[in-house]
Amino acid sequence: MNEEGFLYERISRRLLEQIGAGSYAVGQKLPSVRHLSRLFQVSVNTVMQSYRQLEAEGYLEIRPQSGAYVRHCDVHDVPEPDGSRYPLLPVEVSLSEEVLHYMELHVMPHQVRLGIALPGVEVMPVERVTQTIREVARHYPQETWDYMHPHGFPQFTHHLARRSLSYDVPVVPDDIIVTGGAMEGLSLALRSVSRPGDAVAVESPTYYGTLLLLKTHQRRVVEIPTHPRHGISLSALERVFAERGVSACIVSANAQNPLGFTMSLERKQALSALARRYQIPLIENDVWGDTVYEEGALPVKAFDDDGWVLYCNSFSKTLMPGLRIGWAAPGRFQRRFLELKQLSTITSTSLSQIVMGRLLESGFYAQHIRDLRGTLQRQVEATAREVRAAFPPGTRLTRPTGGCVLWVRLPGRVNAVALFEKAAREGIHVFPGGVFSLDNKHSDYLRLNAGGPVTGAVVEALRWLGRATSELAGGCVME
Amino acid sequence: MNEEGFLYERISRRLLEQIGAGSYAVGQKLPSVRHLSRLFQVSVNTVMQSYRQLEAEGYLEIRPQSGAYVRHCDVHDVPEPDGSRYPLLPVEVSLSEEVLHYMELHVMPHQVRLGIALPGVEVMPVERVTQTIREVARHYPQETWDYMHPHGFPQFTHHLARRSLSYDVPVVPDDIIVTGGAMEGLSLALRSVSRPGDAVAVESPTYYGTLLLLKTHQRRVVEIPTHPRHGISLSALERVFAERGVSACIVSANAQNPLGFTMSLERKQALSALARRYQIPLIENDVWGDTVYEEGALPVKAFDDDGWVLYCNSFSKTLMPGLRIGWAAPGRFQRRFLELKQLSTITSTSLSQIVMGRLLESGFYAQHIRDLRGTLQRQVEATAREVRAAFPPGTRLTRPTGGCVLWVRLPGRVNAVALFEKAAREGIHVFPGGVFSLDNKHSDYLRLNAGGPVTGAVVEALRWLGRATSELAGGCVME
Repeated sequence: MNEEGFLYERISRRLLEQIGAGSYAVGQKLPSVRHLSRLFQVSVNTVMQSYRQLEAEGYLEIRPQSGAYVRHCDVHDVPEPDGSRYPLLPVEVSLSEEVLHYMELHVMPHQVRLGIALPGVEVMPVERVTQTIREVARHYPQETWDYMHPHGFPQFTHHLARRSLSYDVPVVPDDIIVTGGAMEGLSLALRSVSRPGDAVAVESPTYYGTLLLLKTHQRRVVEIPTHPRHGISLSALERVFAERGVSACIVSANAQNPLGFTMSLERKQALSALARRYQIPLIENDVWGDTVYEEGALPVKAFDDDGWVLYCNSFSKTLMPGLRIGWAAPGRFQRRFLELKQLSTITSTSLSQIVMGRLLESGFYAQHIRDLRGTLQRQVEATAREVRAAFPPGTRLTRPTGGCVLWVRLPGRVNAVALFEKAAREGIHVFPGGVFSLDNKHSDYLRLNAGGPVTGAVVEALRWLGRATSELAGGCVME
Repeated sequence: MNEEGFLYERISRRLLEQIGAGSYAVGQKLPSVRHLSRLFQVSVNTVMQSYRQLEAEGYLEIRPQSGAYVRHCDVHDVPEPDGSRYPLLPVEVSLSEEVLHYMELHVMPHQVRLGIALPGVEVMPVERVTQTIREVARHYPQETWDYMHPHGFPQFTHHLARRSLSYDVPVVPDDIIVTGGAMEGLSLALRSVSRPGDAVAVESPTYYGTLLLLKTHQRRVVEIPTHPRHGISLSALERVFAERGVSACIVSANAQNPLGFTMSLERKQALSALARRYQIPLIENDVWGDTVYEEGALPVKAFDDDGWVLYCNSFSKTLMPGLRIGWAAPGRFQRRFLELKQLSTITSTSLSQIVMGRLLESGFYAQHIRDLRGTLQRQVEATAREVRAAFPPGTRLTRPTGGCVLWVRLPGRVNAVALFEKAAREGIHVFPGGVFSLDNKHSDYLRLNAGGPVTGAVVEALRWLGRATSELAGGCVME
C-alpha cells in the first residue's frame, strides 16, 4: 500500500479539492464516470467506488440515469492531519491523569452535558430495561446471586456470537469473555499482548482514556496520523509495523471517538491484513460500532482469519452505562486474557449479563439500536447547525458517520482548556481536545457531545460557547 | 519486637505445649494467674491476656471465682510454620495461572461445592435482596442508568464510612472508592504503590489470587511465615521492612483465607505501626472481616493514623458475589488509586451500589451478618467434626475464628492435587493447598469450604475424601 492510499480515495480527494475550491457549486453536475475513468486511467468500478464514498459522506447525490450532483461543499471540515507532526517514533505519554477530573463534571447536578461522549438518558428505553431488571431479579435469583462463569451467561454470549453471522470470520461463544465494560476489555487486551516499556500504535486523535491507559501501564505511544473521514493512515502504520516499532495497535474503525469516521470495508480488510502479515496484535475498540448511522457496519474483527484482532465492545454507549457490561473476543490471546480477567475482577456482574441476554433474545436491543441510530444522527446534525450558526468564522467541524460527538476546531488558536474552564463555571460541561493526542496537536479543538435532545438549554449553551470562543480569540478569528 | 513475639503469646505457647503433651487433661485446672505471673516474671495482666487468648481460641474456659480449666487439647492443630523454609528473600511467583481453572468447577452443575471459599446460597437472604433489586430498579431508574460518580453512590459510601465509627482512625466518605469486588481493589492498590520488578511481602499461606495477581503484574514475592492462629510473623516482617526488601505488604487480619485466624488487637496495632515506621504501604484484604464469629473485629485500618493502609473489602463473601461490588479506602494513595480505577473499569455497577446502600441504611445487612456469623461457625464446626471422623489418623486441621474454610493437612505427604483430581471425577470440588504458597510448602494441604449446610451429600463427600486420602497415603498415615 503506498503513501497515497487506495486509488478511489485519491480520486475522491481530487474531486473534493475542486469542490472545496468552488470549481463545482452545490447542485452542479460532476464529470461522468466514463470521463473520469479515462482521465485517471482507472476502471469504471474504481470511479464508482469514489462516487459512492463521496455520497456516503454527504458531499454528492447520485441520481439514477442522470449522474452525480454536488450536494454539499462545506469548507468547515476539520483539516487533514499534518504529516510533519508525526515522526512515527515512540514517546512517553505526556498527559496527566488530571484529565480524568474533566470527566467528573458529568455526574454533577445542573450541568448542560456536552462533555462525556454518551447518548442522553432522555433518548433511552429506561422503562423497558428497568422492567427487565425487575423480571430477572424475580425469575433468576440463583443465577444473579453467585459468581458467573468467567465465559459469561450462555444466553448472553450466544446472542453476542450470533451478531457476527455476517462476518467473514464469525465469532463463536467460546471466543467470548464478558468484561465490566469496554474499558476493562481494553486494559486486559493491552496487558495480554504487551509489557511495560513496549510501544503501542494509536490513532491521533484518539480517546483520551486509551492514552492514559497506556501511560498507567508504562507503555510508550506511536501516534499514527488519522484522517477525519478515512481513519488511521495505513501506510504510516505499515511503516511502523515493518520496522517492528510497536508490539500492538489500538484502533476504532466505526464511528471513531472523537472524529466520528467509519472506515471503509476495504480499509478494514487492509488493516486486518496488516496485523496478520506483520503478526502484530490489533486491539479493536468497537464501543461505537452499533451507532454507525448506516446499518450493518462491520468491525475489523469481521476479517480476522488468524486471530490477531482483540475485539472489545460494551453496552455503555448504546444502552446503559450503569450496567457496566461489555465483552471481548481476544482471538489467539484468549487464554491469557481470561487469566488476567479472573485476576482483575474475577467475573462480571451476573444480573447485567442476564438482563442483556434477555434484551438480545427478544430482539428488543436490535430494534432499539435501529431507533437510536436515527435519533443520534438527527441530534448530531441539529447540533452541528447550531455550532455553525453560533461559533465565530473559521470554526471547523467533523461530519460524523455515527456516534454522538462533534470534533470542533476553534479559530484563532483558542486554547480549549481555557474554554472548558470558563464553561464549567457556567454549568456547561465540554471536553477540551488537547487530551486526545500528545504534544498539543489538538489544543485548539473541542469535543461536543450531541447525545441528548437539542433543547433550549443546549442551544443557549452552544450560543454561550460561541460567544466565549469569540472573546478568547480576540480579533483573530480569521483562517 | 523480638523473634518471640509478644510476651503473652510466649506464655500461651508454653501452656499449649504442656496441654498438647498431656500435662493438663481436659477438665483439669491450670495454674493460677498469680502463680504464672511469678513464674514468668510478668504482670498479672499479661497472664490474663494469655488466658483470654487461649479462651478465645477454645482451649480453655475461665470460670469466675474459680480459675482456668482445659476445655480442648486437640493435637490435630496444623503445625506452626517452619522458619527454615522462609529465607525472606524475593522470588518470582512460580505458580501457573492454570490454577484459575481449579475455580471453574464451582460453576459446573452437580458439584458438591467444597472448593471455592464462599457461604452457600442456601444460607443467604436471596428473597430479600432480589426484592431490593426490584425496588431499586423501580424507584431509581435514572441513577441506575448512568455512570456512577467514581467515589460511588453517596447513600452507599456514607453508610460504609459509618461502619468505622469505633476505629481509632475512622474512615470518612471521601476516603472511599467503590470497586467491582475486592479483587479489583487489591489489583488497583498494588498498582498504586508498586511497579513491575518490585517485591511485595505476603502471608504464607495466602489466598492464591494474591500470588497470581503479583505474578501477572510482574512483582516478586517475599513470603512471610504466618502462624495458623496468630497471623503473620511481625518480627520476620520487620526484618524485611528494615532491609527495604519490599515496596508493599498484602495482609488479611480477620478470618484469614486459608488459615482462618484473626489477629489480636495488639498485633493489628503493631502491624499498622510497622507500616508507618518504615513507611511501607500495607494492602489490607478484609473480605472476611464481617464473618469473624466474635462480634466487632477491627481491621488494621482502624489504627491507620498516617494513611499507609490501603483497605479493600467487598460484599462477595458476606452477601452476594454476583453484585460484584466492593470498596477501598486507600489512605494516602487515594488519588492514584482513583485514577487507576477510572482507567480500569471507569466506575462500578450503579444498581449494585444503590442496592447495598439501601440494605445498609435499613439495618438489614447488620442483622444479616449477625445471623451469618453464627451459621458459618456452626457449619465449620460440624464440618470439622466430620473431617476428624472421616480422615485418616495424622490429619490435622485449623480451628477458624471466622469465615467458612478449613485448612487441612493430609497425612503421609499425600499430594492434594492428586486428591483434587480424583475428587473432581466424583463431582466433589475441593481446593489443593499447594497454590496458597510457593515451593510446595503446602502441597499436602487441602482447603475445604464449609459455607453450605452439612447435608447428607456433604457428609458423603467428606467420607469419600477421607477414604481417598487413605488410599493415596497407602500405609503411611502415621505422623
